[in-house]
Amino acid sequence: MTRTAVLGSGNWGTAYAAILADAGQEVCLWSRRREVADEISATHVNSAYLPELMLPESVTATSDPERAVEGAEIVVLAVPSQSLRDNLAQWGPALPRDAAIVSLMKGIELGTASRMSQVIAEAGKVELERIVVVSGPNLAKEIAAKQPAAAVVASSSARMRAKVAEVSAAPYFRPYLGGDVVGTEIAGAVKNVIALAVGMASGMGMGENTMASLLTRGLAETARLGAALGADPQTFLGLAGVGDLVATCTSPLSRNRTFGYKLGTGMTLAEVVAVTKQTTEGVKSCESILQLARSVNVEVPIVENVAAVVHEGRKPIDVLEALMSRARKHEAS
Amino acid sequence: MTRTAVLGSGNWGTAYAAILADAGQEVCLWSRRREVADEISATHVNSAYLPELMLPESVTATSDPERAVEGAEIVVLAVPSQSLRDNLAQWGPALPRDAAIVSLMKGIELGTASRMSQVIAEAGKVELERIVVVSGPNLAKEIAAKQPAAAVVASSSARMRAKVAEVSAAPYFRPYLGGDVVGTEIAGAVKNVIALAVGMASGMGMGENTMASLLTRGLAETARLGAALGADPQTFLGLAGVGDLVATCTSPLSRNRTFGYKLGTGMTLAEVVAVTKQTTEGVKSCESILQLARSVNVEVPIVENVAAVVHEGRKPIDVLEALMSRARKHEAS
Repeated sequence: MTRTAVLGSGNWGTAYAAILADAGQEVCLWSRRREVADEISATHVNSAYLPELMLPESVTATSDPERAVEGAEIVVLAVPSQSLRDNLAQWGPALPRDAAIVSLMKGIELGTASRMSQVIAEAGKVELERIVVVSGPNLAKEIAAKQPAAAVVASSSARMRAKVAEVSAAPYFRPYLGGDVVGTEIAGAVKNVIALAVGMASGMGMGENTMASLLTRGLAETARLGAALGADPQTFLGLAGVGDLVATCTSPLSRNRTFGYKLGTGMTLAEVVAVTKQTTEGVKSCESILQLARSVNVEVPIVENVAAVVHEGRKPIDVLEALMSRARKHEAS
Repeated sequence: MTRTAVLGSGNWGTAYAAILADAGQEVCLWSRRREVADEISATHVNSAYLPELMLPESVTATSDPERAVEGAEIVVLAVPSQSLRDNLAQWGPALPRDAAIVSLMKGIELGTASRMSQVIAEAGKVELERIVVVSGPNLAKEIAAKQPAAAVVASSSARMRAKVAEVSAAPYFRPYLGGDVVGTEIAGAVKNVIALAVGMASGMGMGENTMASLLTRGLAETARLGAALGADPQTFLGLAGVGDLVATCTSPLSRNRTFGYKLGTGMTLAEVVAVTKQTTEGVKSCESILQLARSVNVEVPIVENVAAVVHEGRKPIDVLEALMSRARKHEAS
């Protein structure tokens, strides 16, 4: 039984706490809000996020970050991407100096265009070899329902990724090992933007061919961007690439897909935000991704069109144009 | 205006005739059954397959293969995979000696474990450089509805693939060029088997995580098999790989997915065949694919489990076991 901490009690943090517990570990789940921690301690349920999941007895909860991470060998970070840096400024000094630090976050920081592991290294003063990224087709509600899923556990350190895979192997959750942190993070961030595009096409009444064509061309531009940033192209063929992208683009549970769908039906950005009461990670990250792509001179036509739709009011039909109107060329180019 | 012929008037052959006509070509569509050819000539509709598609005036139809291919610069083959060799024995001598021969077929021949291009070369006496394979996320009903889709047009000859892409570029159909015939064909054949597995999981009540995990691990075993047979691993990241697999695994129009779904709900093979009145290409090809995999010593656990379900009566739950129970290991292995 390994002592673990999960910082962040949203959908995915809460579901990951259940995975760790079901894999046999002791888990302390940190919530920013005291009342959520109290509810979980008293009832073992996080009713705001996953009301149907009864957390195992081995999960405790607290709103005190220092208490959460005390003595933990594994610390899992699951806060909103854009608040990670501020959170780390607070928690950083408390993080155990030899623990594996696991990132579940999928985004690119606004302003700096940093990947989450870069923010962890900088703001948390964590050595890169202690950072482990977990990603894959892992919709939290389905994980909570214990439906079988696989994920990749990526780190530059073979010891760290093996340790995190070991403690995360639950009967319904199968970790695979990976060494490509850059590719895993780029895949996770860009898929939110591709899901917006796919959602738009679906909202315009398009079926599976269009969805799959957009998804595939989106994956191709993601792989090009990743390769330019030092990623292994094969990563995009795996669970963090195709796997996560497919789950996100086909699930009605996906916030990004749903947001895009509403845009595709003709609603304006303001109307969609008014209905959904939030913008999504893809809406936030698309400009940082564009900034990254320009820094390495990679064309990302689908990301570019999505950014133009959500930030400049261009029509969603232009996303389809981006797919269909470019000159005939080799698939890999 | 290029003179083209399409041999085979099922779903995909008929839809491809519409693509060629909408791209500006003259098309002669051959049907094995005289009454289908007569209906198309008289009404421009193939009511048995795509009743909602009105074929353009530039599509004519015949049941005489020699008349169909006469003077054609492009001959498209779209017959059932397992009947290709017999058909070619009949048509072979009539095929124009300098035409591009395009394969739309996705299967592996039973007995010989040959890819379709190999059958075309042998039984049709066609030089390999004249053979062009078209594949991608191309559900025929959606193509017929003119929904935007992309495809890869693969040939060892740069001239032949460029020619076929040129004549097939309709406003709603975007061809990309590719050079990997082996990878394109392996991807197209194995995806039918993966779709059976995904359908089974769905029939057992599993959601997007399981679907995407199976799809991704299925793609990984397809890529391993392809690489061992000489394919470029990047092909599996493209339209013939991920693209076609995603469209097939998510569409209710997919026969293989639907067949698997019914097995997943607990119906026996005999019961499913009784209801659907047919077996699917995946059911037919899975043993040939297994034979191919064994010939190059590649493990294909999902294909193996599907073959055991459809041919040995093993329970579909074992397909999920194949996904979840293997030892933790590197994703690429």
